[in-house]
Amino acid sequence: MNISDISSQINTQVLGSVLTIKFNRPDKMNSFTFEMYRALTKILNEIEDDDDVRVVVLSGSGGNFSAGNDIKDFVSVVEENGMDRGHDAPAFVDTLREFSKPVVAAVEGFAVGIGATLLLYCDLVYASQDAQFRTPFTHLGLCPEAAASHILPRIMGRARAGEWLLLGDIIPADQAMRDGVVTRVCDDPLAMAQEKAMFLSKMSPKAVADTKRLMSSQNEILRKAFDEEMIKFAECLETEEARAAFKSFLER
Amino acid sequence: MNISDISSQINTQVLGSVLTIKFNRPDKMNSFTFEMYRALTKILNEIEDDDDVRVVVLSGSGGNFSAGNDIKDFVSVVEENGMDRGHDAPAFVDTLREFSKPVVAAVEGFAVGIGATLLLYCDLVYASQDAQFRTPFTHLGLCPEAAASHILPRIMGRARAGEWLLLGDIIPADQAMRDGVVTRVCDDPLAMAQEKAMFLSKMSPKAVADTKRLMSSQNEILRKAFDEEMIKFAECLETEEARAAFKSFLER
Amino acid sequence: MNISDISSQINTQVLGSVLTIKFNRPDKMNSFTFEMYRALTKILNEIEDDDDVRVVVLSGSGGNFSAGNDIKDFVSVVEENGMDRGHDAPAFVDTLREFSKPVVAAVEGFAVGIGATLLLYCDLVYASQDAQFRTPFTHLGLCPEAAASHILPRIMGRARAGEWLLLGDIIPADQAMRDGVVTRVCDDPLAMAQEKAMFLSKMSPKAVADTKRLMSSQNEILRKAFDEEMIKFAECLETEEARAAFKSFLER
Repeated sequence: MNISDISSQINTQVLGSVLTIKFNRPDKMNSFTFEMYRALTKILNEIEDDDDVRVVVLSGSGGNFSAGNDIKDFVSVVEENGMDRGHDAPAFVDTLREFSKPVVAAVEGFAVGIGATLLLYCDLVYASQDAQFRTPFTHLGLCPEAAASHILPRIMGRARAGEWLLLGDIIPADQAMRDGVVTRVCDDPLAMAQEKAMFLSKMSPKAVADTKRLMSSQNEILRKAFDEEMIKFAECLETEEARAAFKSFLER
Repeated sequence: MNISDISSQINTQVLGSVLTIKFNRPDKMNSFTFEMYRALTKILNEIEDDDDVRVVVLSGSGGNFSAGNDIKDFVSVVEENGMDRGHDAPAFVDTLREFSKPVVAAVEGFAVGIGATLLLYCDLVYASQDAQFRTPFTHLGLCPEAAASHILPRIMGRARAGEWLLLGDIIPADQAMRDGVVTRVCDDPLAMAQEKAMFLSKMSPKAVADTKRLMSSQNEILRKAFDEEMIKFAECLETEEARAAFKSFLER
Repeated sequence: MNISDISSQINTQVLGSVLTIKFNRPDKMNSFTFEMYRALTKILNEIEDDDDVRVVVLSGSGGNFSAGNDIKDFVSVVEENGMDRGHDAPAFVDTLREFSKPVVAAVEGFAVGIGATLLLYCDLVYASQDAQFRTPFTHLGLCPEAAASHILPRIMGRARAGEWLLLGDIIPADQAMRDGVVTRVCDDPLAMAQEKAMFLSKMSPKAVADTKRLMSSQNEILRKAFDEEMIKFAECLETEEARAAFKSFLER
């Protein structure tokens, strides 16, 4: 496989046994298109059984991690194809959740929506001091996804999770670390992520895989929580409030 | 309904779609009487299906949130009526737990006993710098209630929860935020709570309700944990140590 | 019982109703031998029904808490007797988990491996500013034990738990407190632990025991998580990577 051919919206680079995947739509703050979801899913599936890749680094480009779903792409695809194609996004989250090798994220700038919730499935998250996290689902008339509604209240307490999921506030990097979403705040998150990934890639693959699997023992619960969210999410998408929010967003 | 008529120990105020409920026994640090539990339960039940109220703010008065159970009232009522009437307190917690609209708490001064544990069922908790949190059940010969024994070790770790529930220490506001019980420490928690409540009240009611429900997915587990606590709580009430602690408290 | 006779590798001291147990191999940074595991298990079992002991303090000696498993002892015993004798270590964790009285830990210097994971079963953990926590299982080609893979992601978030369990980093005391493994950082953790233990020992035994039991409601889940870890742990022990790591460690 030449994974660099999968999509121009994704850059990949292999160094040793570490694969770095960069979201490559810097002019759109790396917001995710369906093409990107499918490309990311395909890459993770391809390397699942590839012994040459032991650790994955996820990064943005152009100073941001990801602004989340590309709403223009989302609306046009779902209007044309229905929610069947909309399932490309949850399929990526499902694949990331079940992926057996360590995933290390490097976050600069904005990590919004699914650009923030996917971090809940990363094993290490390094963020720059100016990184900003945001899950503004209610602002769009929507509910959380990726089991964020299950995970966040449990790791940080309901009172803190309310700031993320109900208010949709911007959470600075230091607070995101205190809330347990970020491993560490540092000057150069990509360099740090790649250094730690390289370190993990040289350890016993079985020890690392077993550790990750044991730490993921609630995956089945998270899958169910995500399924429940998706039922409500689809309902919310049909509301006037969500339609108005999307329309207003696209007219900006 | 004119909810302001329910009890003189509770003040209510409606602004837009936000109902502010103030515990109104400032000379008793707003400690809860059975009358207050029943009034609070009644208000929450009344507004559950009232579309004019979208968000609730809970606040104390006179510089404190609540000193918890009014022990004098508790002892006199339970001695006269048995634990059946004692169930007014857990009934309030049950109603708060199942309440479908966002609840925002504003905490100044003391939040003690059930005045602290009820915060675990609030969606946002704003506290002043001088707010003090305390769950001194063991000091009274009692065990925790409101599923605090289940929630606290999970969100803050067992070692930190021991300081709350075994030692019954005073927890300052900054620490309570780090422990995940407080959303944010601020200068004027009531103004902040009302501002955030107003903000939430203008969002899509379905998106907000679905988000809250998804975030409350462990309610059934919490109900069972609370039931188990109440069995032990009733047993503890019968011990000499609890009787002596209550007597000593009342003689202060 | 004269528990001071159980093993020269364990010192015990009774003050009031508080039993202080000191790991006594200061020249080996109090790393645990099978003799120590068995002695600790025996002591906990003996005092489980001894009303004269109400609270236990665990402490190291010589400036460290414990460097974890004594690998030399572990290798020689397991090579001679197989994993049957290897079960002395998990048996100690099982006993500590099910122990009904409060356990307060005082940590100075290193708390490594099982010297760190056993803290997850202590009710209060006081640490000196220079205490260092470390769970470097992957460095030895192993996976976590004592249900650390279950507990850590839940209390501190997966991103923070990755630093403990995948990277095996040294975690300073302040961070361990923020992560929920330490109750409080203080100048003299042993004095603090004994003071708090004395305080707890004077409270209603039933209230304290009920509170601890209610806070331990997930013990059955932790037992299963530990069992699953032990299957993987035994597999990892057989790998070339683990054998090489042990060999390299013993040749240092």
